[in-house]
Parts: sequence; C-alpha cells; structure tokens
Amino acid sequence: MAELTGLWLIGARGSVATTAVCGLAALRAGLAPATGCVSEQLELDPAVFPGWDQLVVGGHDISSTPLEKRADELAEAGVIPRRILAMIGDELRRVDDAIRPGYHPSSHPGAQAAAAARLVEDLLEFKRLNNLARVVVVNVSSTEPPVPPLPEHEDLDALKRALADPERCVLTPSSLAAYAAFTAGCAFVDFTPSPGLLLPVLTDLARSVGVPYAGRDGKTGETLLRSVLAPMFSARGLRVHSWSGTNLLGGGDGANLANPTKAEGKLESKARGLAALLGPDVTAPLHIDNVPDLGERKVAWDYVSFEGFLGARMSLQFSWDGYDSALAAPLVLDLARLTAGAQVAGQAGPLGALGFFFKDPLGSDEHRLAEQARELTEWVRATAA
Amino acid sequence: MAELTGLWLIGARGSVATTAVCGLAALRAGLAPATGCVSEQLELDPAVFPGWDQLVVGGHDISSTPLEKRADELAEAGVIPRRILAMIGDELRRVDDAIRPGYHPSSHPGAQAAAAARLVEDLLEFKRLNNLARVVVVNVSSTEPPVPPLPEHEDLDALKRALADPERCVLTPSSLAAYAAFTAGCAFVDFTPSPGLLLPVLTDLARSVGVPYAGRDGKTGETLLRSVLAPMFSARGLRVHSWSGTNLLGGGDGANLANPTKAEGKLESKARGLAALLGPDVTAPLHIDNVPDLGERKVAWDYVSFEGFLGARMSLQFSWDGYDSALAAPLVLDLARLTAGAQVAGQAGPLGALGFFFKDPLGSDEHRLAEQARELTEWVRATAA
Amino acid sequence: MAELTGLWLIGARGSVATTAVCGLAALRAGLAPATGCVSEQLELDPAVFPGWDQLVVGGHDISSTPLEKRADELAEAGVIPRRILAMIGDELRRVDDAIRPGYHPSSHPGAQAAAAARLVEDLLEFKRLNNLARVVVVNVSSTEPPVPPLPEHEDLDALKRALADPERCVLTPSSLAAYAAFTAGCAFVDFTPSPGLLLPVLTDLARSVGVPYAGRDGKTGETLLRSVLAPMFSARGLRVHSWSGTNLLGGGDGANLANPTKAEGKLESKARGLAALLGPDVTAPLHIDNVPDLGERKVAWDYVSFEGFLGARMSLQFSWDGYDSALAAPLVLDLARLTAGAQVAGQAGPLGALGFFFKDPLGSDEHRLAEQARELTEWVRATAA
Amino acid sequence: MAELTGLWLIGARGSVATTAVCGLAALRAGLAPATGCVSEQLELDPAVFPGWDQLVVGGHDISSTPLEKRADELAEAGVIPRRILAMIGDELRRVDDAIRPGYHPSSHPGAQAAAAARLVEDLLEFKRLNNLARVVVVNVSSTEPPVPPLPEHEDLDALKRALADPERCVLTPSSLAAYAAFTAGCAFVDFTPSPGLLLPVLTDLARSVGVPYAGRDGKTGETLLRSVLAPMFSARGLRVHSWSGTNLLGGGDGANLANPTKAEGKLESKARGLAALLGPDVTAPLHIDNVPDLGERKVAWDYVSFEGFLGARMSLQFSWDGYDSALAAPLVLDLARLTAGAQVAGQAGPLGALGFFFKDPLGSDEHRLAEQARELTEWVRATAA
Repeated sequence: MAELTGLWLIGARGSVATTAVCGLAALRAGLAPATGCVSEQLELDPAVFPGWDQLVVGGHDISSTPLEKRADELAEAGVIPRRILAMIGDELRRVDDAIRPGYHPSSHPGAQAAAAARLVEDLLEFKRLNNLARVVVVNVSSTEPPVPPLPEHEDLDALKRALADPERCVLTPSSLAAYAAFTAGCAFVDFTPSPGLLLPVLTDLARSVGVPYAGRDGKTGETLLRSVLAPMFSARGLRVHSWSGTNLLGGGDGANLANPTKAEGKLESKARGLAALLGPDVTAPLHIDNVPDLGERKVAWDYVSFEGFLGARMSLQFSWDGYDSALAAPLVLDLARLTAGAQVAGQAGPLGALGFFFKDPLGSDEHRLAEQARELTEWVRATAA
Repeated sequence: MAELTGLWLIGARGSVATTAVCGLAALRAGLAPATGCVSEQLELDPAVFPGWDQLVVGGHDISSTPLEKRADELAEAGVIPRRILAMIGDELRRVDDAIRPGYHPSSHPGAQAAAAARLVEDLLEFKRLNNLARVVVVNVSSTEPPVPPLPEHEDLDALKRALADPERCVLTPSSLAAYAAFTAGCAFVDFTPSPGLLLPVLTDLARSVGVPYAGRDGKTGETLLRSVLAPMFSARGLRVHSWSGTNLLGGGDGANLANPTKAEGKLESKARGLAALLGPDVTAPLHIDNVPDLGERKVAWDYVSFEGFLGARMSLQFSWDGYDSALAAPLVLDLARLTAGAQVAGQAGPLGALGFFFKDPLGSDEHRLAEQARELTEWVRATAA
Repeated sequence: MAELTGLWLIGARGSVATTAVCGLAALRAGLAPATGCVSEQLELDPAVFPGWDQLVVGGHDISSTPLEKRADELAEAGVIPRRILAMIGDELRRVDDAIRPGYHPSSHPGAQAAAAARLVEDLLEFKRLNNLARVVVVNVSSTEPPVPPLPEHEDLDALKRALADPERCVLTPSSLAAYAAFTAGCAFVDFTPSPGLLLPVLTDLARSVGVPYAGRDGKTGETLLRSVLAPMFSARGLRVHSWSGTNLLGGGDGANLANPTKAEGKLESKARGLAALLGPDVTAPLHIDNVPDLGERKVAWDYVSFEGFLGARMSLQFSWDGYDSALAAPLVLDLARLTAGAQVAGQAGPLGALGFFFKDPLGSDEHRLAEQARELTEWVRATAA
Repeated sequence: MAELTGLWLIGARGSVATTAVCGLAALRAGLAPATGCVSEQLELDPAVFPGWDQLVVGGHDISSTPLEKRADELAEAGVIPRRILAMIGDELRRVDDAIRPGYHPSSHPGAQAAAAARLVEDLLEFKRLNNLARVVVVNVSSTEPPVPPLPEHEDLDALKRALADPERCVLTPSSLAAYAAFTAGCAFVDFTPSPGLLLPVLTDLARSVGVPYAGRDGKTGETLLRSVLAPMFSARGLRVHSWSGTNLLGGGDGANLANPTKAEGKLESKARGLAALLGPDVTAPLHIDNVPDLGERKVAWDYVSFEGFLGARMSLQFSWDGYDSALAAPLVLDLARLTAGAQVAGQAGPLGALGFFFKDPLGSDEHRLAEQARELTEWVRATAA
C-alpha cells in the first residue's frame, strides 16, 4: 500500500502533539524503538493499516510558537532526547509549515459557519497538497469545560442555522473541529475530555457522512492503572469501599486544569470509569492540582481501602510518576493508524474496540483493560479480514 | 447433590486454616458475606461443585494448640471478628476433633512408609466416619526449603523402596502429604511453595490413580498485583527495566521465611512469575523480612522503573497492606469446591485452569490474571457441561 | 501537691475526648503505659504540675450519647482495647455524670449572655463540687468555619452589649466557650482550628483576668511530619518547590471537614505552618476528603518536590496512617497538666512555649518541632523554678 | 584572607567528586546558586573559613577516565546541566591535570610504605605547586568492606614495621589515604563507611600531628530522613516497633554495594544511627539493591510501624528519590571549608560538631539532625571567635 494517510492534530503545537511529531520522525529515521506504541504489537495488516512511513502530519493550533521551540522545551524537560532532536530538524520544520491557525471564539468573531468553512478548507488543502488518501483528525488541544445541552446539539438543521448566526457561539472549539472534520469527510479521534464528540448531532453527522470516530480522553496514567486494578479486586471478590485519588500536574496541563470549570470534564470522565468498574457505592474523592515545578511530569497517588474475608480491612496505595506527553504521544500515533484502517475497511460511527485507549470509551461499556486489549486484538484481525 | 466432600488441611491449626474454618462456619451460619471468595462469582453448577454446606473439614497438624485458641489470637490480631467467633465455638470444636497429628521427620523416626500409611489411614477414616464422597487435601502448612533432586523422585518403585528404608528420608512432609493423598485416592492442592507436588513421581502417581491436583503457592498479595500490572505494561508496549520488591511479614510466616533457606522456594516462585510476564531481562531484587510487630499483617512495597516513548524514564510504586490469612482463606475454600468438582467430572492430573489462584501455576504457562480469570470461567462452564 | 485540677472538655462526648477520658482512667489504673504522652518525658515538678491522679474530668457537649457508647464505638474502630474498656466502666459513668449540655445557637435562642452565664455556672459548679483548685478548659469540639471580623471582637464593652442583645449572635460556640472559661477564671486551650481564641477581645480578657491560654489546632499527623521535614530541607539548603498534601479522614471529622466552609480554618492553619517554615513561594495544594469507611483512621499523603545542587530535581513522598484520636488524646492530657502548671506558676496570656503541640501556635512564631521541643523543655524547667 | 586551601579528593574521578568539581566551578563562575550547600547558611567568618574562590582541587583515583567524560555521563544522567558543563571545560581540565594515580593493592605490589610515601609526596607537591596554606583530604572513593582488627591498628611502631614488609597489606586504601594525609600534615574527612579512620592508630596519629579529622559516611538520603523522623517519634512519646528500609541504587554505587561484603560497612553505619536514635529494641531490616537502570538515582523506601496511646497501631512510610551525587557533592565542599577552618583555628582530633553531615559521626553521640544543626552553628561561631 503506497497510499498516504494524513494525521491532523488539533493543538498541533502542544506537548503531546510535539512529542508525537518528534517521535514519528525518530521512528521513521530508526533513531528510537517504538516503545509505548501499542500498534507495533498488533500485527497490523499493511494492506489496511498505514505504516509509520505512510503518515503525513499537519494540524491546527491557536499558538504560533514554532515546533522546534516546543521540542526544545520538551528536551529541557526530559521528554525528548537532545540526541534525537538534533537529527529531525528538517522534519519538524516540514510539519510546522503544515500547521494552520486554530479556531478560538475570542479571536474569531463572526458566524461560526465561516470559521468551520475555513477549517474544512484547511483539511481539504492538506489532503490535496500531500496527495492523501484520507485524513484522521485527532484532538489533543487543551481541555474545555463541559457545556450545557442545547437543542442545536441534537438537530443538524438547527445547528447549521445557529452556526450561521454571528451572534451565537453554539459549538466549543473541540466540537467545531469535529464538525469540520466530518464535513470534510475525515475521521475524528478525541484524545481529550472536551465536549468534542459528545453532541448527538455530531455523531449523527459522522454516521451520515460514513466516517468512523473514536474517543474519549486518552487513558495514560491513573485511570490506566485503575482499569487493571479495579478488575483485580472484582475478580477476587474483594469489596472496595473507597478509592481516593490526587493528581499533581505541571506544565500547561496543570495550569489549564487548575481551573475547576475546565477540570470538571476530566474529573467526570475519570469518575465514570471507576463507577463502571466497581459500581456506584465507592467513595471516590478526586483532585487535580497545578504544580508548575513538575514541568512535563505528572504524579498521581491513589489510596484504595477494601474489605476481604470476614470484614478484614486492607489497603493498596500507589504512586505513578510519568511524563504525560511520553505516555500519550505514541497512543496518538497508534490511533491514527487504527482509525485510518477502520476507514479503509469502510467502518463508520463509533469505534468501540478502541476503548482500550480511553478513559471514557465511546461505543463501549467495557472499562477493564485486559478485556479491552482482547477486543482490540480481535477487531484488528476482523478489520483486516 | 446431597453428597458430602471432605476438605483436609495440612497445617490445620495454622492461621490460614483457622481462618478458613472460621469463615466456612460463618458463611454457613449466614454470619458473614462471602467477600473474597471467587467461587461465589462463578455460577458453579451444584450438581458438580459442592456448596458451603457440603464441605466437612479435618486435617493434619504437628501442633496441638486448640483451634479455638488460634482463632482467639486471630481475633486479637484483627482477622476474625469477635462477634463471629462467639457464635461458632461448636463448629470449631467439631473440626478440632477431626484434626490428627501431622508428620514431621524429627518426631517420626523410622521408615517414612509407616508414616505415610498412617496418613493414608487418617484420610480414609475421615472419609468413612463422615460418609464423604471424596476428600480434597490442601496444603497450607509452613513453607519448606527446596530439595535437591533424587532418582527416587522420578520412579515410583524406587521411591517405595526408599520409603521402606528406615535410614532414609526421601520426601519432605509436604511431598509425603501429597503421596498419602494420592495413595488414598484424594485430590491434592498445594497452596504453598514447598516441594510438595514438584516431584515427577508424585504427579505421575496422581495421573495413574486418576485424581486431579492443583498448585502452587497461593497468589494473595504482591504477586497478585504483579499479575495485573505487568500485563498492563506489556499491553501498552512500555519497557520495564526493574521491578524491586520488599515484603514485610509478621506472625509465624515472617519468622519462618526469615530463614533464607526456607524463603528460597517462595522467592523462586515469585521470581518465576515476573520473568514469565516480562521476560528475563528485568532487574528484580526481592526481599522477605520478618517484622514480628506486624502480627498477621503483610506489607509489600514494589518499585517499577520503566521506559516509554523516546526513552522517557518513569516509575510506579505501590504498597499493599493486607492480612495474609484473610486473603488466603477464602481461596482455600474456593479451591476445595473447584477441585472437588474436577474430581466429580472425572478430571485427573494438573488443573491448569486453576492457575488464577497461584503464583507458580502447575499445568499452565499463563500468569496474567485477566487471562487466568477467563480460563477459569470457561473451565467452570466446561466442567459442568 | 494534693490539690485537684479540673479538665473541662468542650466536645466531651467526641472521639478525642472519649479517648482522653478512657486513657486517663487506664493510666491511673495502671492498665496501659503513657505512650504518646509528652509530659511523661518532661520531668514535671509535682509541686507545680498536676499528676494523672490529680485530674478530674467534666465537660460540655451538645450530644447526649453516653460516653460508654462512644467508647464502645472507638473499641470497635480499634482505638481503645476492649480489655481496658471492660475495667473502666465506673470511671466512664462518673465522667458522664459531670458532662453538661453544650451551647449551640440553633438550640439556644435568646441572648448569648444568658448562654454564657449558664456555661460559667457549669464551670463554677464543677469546681465547687469536686473541690478543685483550678480548671483547664480544652476545646476538642467539631471545627467551625472562620468568621468575619466584627467591631465587638475588639472591645469588651461592645461585646457585652452585643451578647445581651437577643437578636445577635456575635460569638461562635468555641469563642463563647473561651469567653465563659475566662469569665470563670479558667485557663483555656484550643485544640481545634475554630475561631475560639482568635478574637482580640478574648485574649485581652484572659490577660486582664490573669489566666493563661494556649492553642491552636493540635499537631497530630501531617503537620507534625511537616514540622520536622521542612526544617530538614532548610538545614541542608535544599530548595522546596512544591509540597502537595491530601488528607483522607473517616469518622465525624471527615464528614465535618468535607464541608468546604468548615475545612477552611483547618486548611488555613496547615498552610500557615508550611509558609512559616519554608517561605511563601512554595506551591502547596492541600485537600481534606471525607472517606467514611476509614472510620477513626486518617491517611495523609504528601509529595515534596525539591531542588538540590546544580538544579537537580528530587522528591520525597510519605504516607501516614494513624488514628486521630489516639494521637490527639494524650496531647490533650499533656496540655491539661502543663496549662494547669502555668496557672499555678502565675502565668497569664499566651503560652508560646506550648507551640510544640499546635499547627498554628499562639504566642510563638516557631514552627520547627525540634526547636519547639527545646523551648518546651526549657519552659517546664523555668516554670518549676 | 588571600590564602588558598587545597581540597584533595580520594576517588577524584567518581560521581560525587566530579559533581563537586563541576559545582565548585559553577559557583565560582556565578552559573548556579549554592543550593544544597550548608556552609552558605552558616555565616562563616572569612578570616577563618575559606571561600569558594580559595579552594583548589586535586586528588587521587585509580581510574584514568577524564573528568570531562565523567561530567558528560553525569549530564546525561540529569545530575549536571549541559548549559553549565559547556562553560566550565577549562576548569575541569585544570583539575584533571592535578589528579594523580590512586593506590590499590592489586596494582601496587611491594611494601605499602612505598605506596604511602608516594601518596604523601603527591599531597606535598600539590600544596607546593599551588602555594596552598593547607590541604583537606576528603575520601569519596568506593566503599570498602569492614576489616578485622589487627594489633598493628593500635600501635604506630608496629604499623610502620608492617607497612615496610612487602608481604603484608595491613591498611585498606582508605586507611592508607588517611595515613598519608596525616603524615603530610593534612586534615582528613571520610565521607564513606570504609574502614578509613576507624583504626585507633590513625586517629592517634592525627592528634599527635595536630590535624583535625571528621567522618564518617555522608548522610544524604534515607539516614538524613531518619535523623529527623526518629526524634519526632521520641519527642511525642510514640513507640517505634519496626523501621524497615530498602535502598535501590543505580550507578557504580549500586554495583559496588550489591557485593554483600562491601555493603556491610554501610549497613552497619546506617543501623548504628537508628539504634542510637531509638534504642536497640526496634526491628530494622535493611537492604541495599543494585538497580542499574536507575543510573545516578537512588530510591529509598522506609516503613515505620509504631504504637500510640492505648496501644493503637499506626504507620508511616516514605519514599525518597534523589541523585546521590547532587546530594553529596555540596556537602563535600562544605566539609572542605569547615575542616579547613578548624585547622586554621588550631583544632586537632575529631570534629564532633560536624556530625550533622554524617551517618556515623566520629567524636559525637548525637544523631538528631536538629541538635546536630545547633551544635554546628555554635561550633562555627566558637571557631571564628
């Protein structure tokens, strides 16, 4: 398969996107092994799923900081080795050239329809210029707060009317990005807990256009651990009473999520996962704190209080110290390959089998990692067949 | 099924056995829920697998401390609620009456054949007196050190000759218990890392007699966690460099395993599990310390150092604070039911599908808990069919 | 010294008070060593400081649950041994008889002056009936939220006028308790972060009456650790960037502090301590969560991110698992003895040398535990001289 | 004071020494603040204690790896910023030129007297060439195992005879280094738990020569924490039952101490500290593991089980994640300044007031950090007077 697939990143100058771009360049140049990439273990059929060499990256961002500068900051923070950075400058500049200004209501007054049209045009141009067979749009931009439901979120005609009204702002940037992606015939993956795909009107649109989508909120740390530990307690018949969590985040993520309104979506998607795994009766306080000096690191502490035979009280606590971008970036690349394969295979609508990657999987009720891994493997096999 | 099944505990006066006896009495009297019992979640066919009411307990022990005294100590240590203890005295005394003196070479000079014959007789008498359809023998006695291989461990005739020789001592107590169990037509489960079933001559004997066996070394704490966390790292393509572990044990278990020779078997069975899950290249120092003031509690700390995308270094650490007996006892009861069912269904040899319960599963190479849970569920279904 | 000293507990039926009462009874009966009692190590001059035998306990509480019932609950939770409880029933009933209804605005309409007069009368009656040389009042009741400043908090005449006004409620229960104590000539210790002593009008009153006071907010867990760890970083010239904390509280304390308004005072007193130790530039998110299943236990996790030579980034994390009442109760007894001694020695006003016991010491700027311990020792010596 | 002081490092090409050399260069060039340097906080009298500008570094090492290469490795490991490294190359090369071949028995056959004479000559030449007023020798070389006592370790004449005997090897390299230092009239600091200064004959020699010495085993991590936490338990009258510790070490230190014989000295010096702080009745298992992938990092986990009022069982656990060299190097520089000041002030023999820096302080029984800090401050003041 000589076809090329586009990977269009919303938030293309952010930490996760920059790490993904650098990593893809490094993988292609043989400068680093594909550690942390799930797709490498899945025996993907090359007739369906694009290889590393077949991905072309572009994206939207409201920032104009050059990728090289962001990569330099990530090297300083310990996420990207300087040795690698020194050898991929050309590729970074190439991707930089393919990044277009992102949408933000404050900087784009006027009807959202115009903004959407511009986003669509950017996608189509990217596809045309690079001679791409398809484009997968992945949202890795800053988390937005939840939005109250509107009638326009349920009806396409109503939505279009509202978008055309310069006085209204009915879609957040993440949802507008999904709207533009589907309108341009692209698949969409939401790696964030933003409203993005949560509106029925958008998922209806994806189905009617015939493109697949996946989400939501990449499972990279605390929730990843919960998705193996909670099933362990269940499998052993142990009764979890409380599961308390604290997340310390540095970098831009911490600053963004220190805003309680913005954190709400993330806290909700985390909480939903735990309730799905253990039922609703577990006390589960959860915090996200902004600790700037941690830089790109993210420290999570969970304390689980549980009961065993004859009421014996026991506990488990863990702490996880990771680089969020280093955990997320390879999954973004995985999702581009897998979602592209789904589109090749003619799948449309939610890709529940990709729930393995997400805190709050769309199209699936399964939160147990081992089961999700099995579903993913089976889906890969079935999709190739 | 009105049939009765015997559960014969080797080490019947130890903490695990005493907790199992108390717990079974409490379950039958409706004094406690079956928290920590796996079999309660498995939808066991009552035509094949005995219910709580169909288990009759007896056992061997070299100690003569009354069960009630041991239960009182466990209540003091927080393992068994006094409220329950107050209501199951009759049952404790009934089991106490069914416990026979265990075998230990120092107190049983003379040929081991005689000792074995006595053990066999105890089992047969237990079966006869209680009108039991079958007996499952479960070893929960103190851990023995590994033994060097002998020619007699491979050949039944040679073994019998050696057993008859009053000058020789070719089987450790755990292996002699297995020999006696098989000779008496009983199934055998090794919940410890003792040599027990490891001798080919014994597993051959089980097969020739046509009884099932399972083991080895109950997976109750640190290794349980490892069997879900290690697959998580694998599933995500993360490369584990080192997995360091420290176990602090109080009670008799700690004192016994503070003896480096005796700890050897346990350390080996733990290490085998990690290597099976992550390969041989992981640095994995492991310690067991005797910390008497912890009483019946067991604290484990693990530190995992791993590598992600582009070489990023990250870590996970957990600490687990549990009551070993409260974790082990319900599994012992589960194993009695499940192994009895296997025997009802005519299965002989190793029950690999019970690997879910063990650090070092006999008859299976699978160490991942989620896969083991699935195999167990399927086996339960197939066995009932 | 055959004199008797009264210990009057505000919140006399709470966990801390009940544990203190049980513990004092046990100490006197020789049923338990004085573990956790600081005063036992201080070589107190018996001519100045009362011994365990010279303390008589009474108190106020708005609850009417009998002490024996509360003690039973604490035994169930693992704080008080049943063995001891069985032998101190008489003493519990004796203290129970000396507990009077506490003040709460909702149940005491009308002018606060009348309520105060009743509290004063209770104290004087307690002193008279028991033939006490003096009474130390210690507040161990539930934490109240901070209050906005009022002019009446600065001027005694204005306060008296406001207290006489049935339409106004100018003092929270903790402050009314301090007002009553001082009016009755009693010393007052605030073991909580409630407004209590924070009003200038009250500390002025103490000085004019000539009685000592001490506070505030007993240092029993996380802050205790911080008061030795923060000075360690300072002494070594290591630069702390962030100190994040999470507190999981069961029991009534957790439920009370789950109310963000009520937690405010506690969070403030904790934060003040850290800033006093390390300066204002440390990022220090702090949470208190209500985790009912922990019962009387309290789990705290702190994560400290610091910088060493040449900018090297390092971290310390600790978790502390304690019984709040078992940590607090002996300190309450210590404070009764020490404050009584201060009164014997004619000291009035804030006892800064008792800062060792408090998160937010009144009359002292010293937060380093080792320095506080030295000041305490010197004060004990000087007070006896 | 325009005088220059020499700092002669035994193990001058090791991680600690290299970090100290780089750090001193950075401090002098104003490239980094003196974070982690205790002496910066002590208000040292410049008439007595040398400033950073007055230190000249040289040393012995059996390795010949250039300092720049070692510094590069430490930059790779995250200990030294590349930004700084790029600006101190000249200084590194200057120190490199002043490093002489260290002594090791395997590479120096023949009488130890000859080796000692060569070491003395190196020191005198260093002093002469650099016009130094004095030289402080600091041992930061690899830990040696404990040695059995010999008669020659108690008597100088006997020692000299043995040193002259080509068939004997009575001093380990660390002790030979101390012998040479004293013979050359230099002060000696042992930052390791090697036998070094432990021989009476050497400390007698120091006294007779009239030079000061200090040691032993720099307190940089786990023991540092213990020296503030153990006094906290004592100050509160809490009874510690067990204090279990695990140390995971990467780098050369881990490999060296993975050798149980070599670790013995370190384990002993750590254990002595705990016993001095809490008495001999504390269960205190302690491990040092070699975990190469940690690189220059060192992770320690301690679990403390303690008892409070009425026997309540509670626990504290901490984990410490640090760069050993970044913690040790500034202390080495501090010790050079302080020991030089002692020599200026005419002090000879053990500098007990420097116990603040050591796990196993020579000349002092005080292990509590806060008390040690106070003694140090007072000594600095008295030494300057």
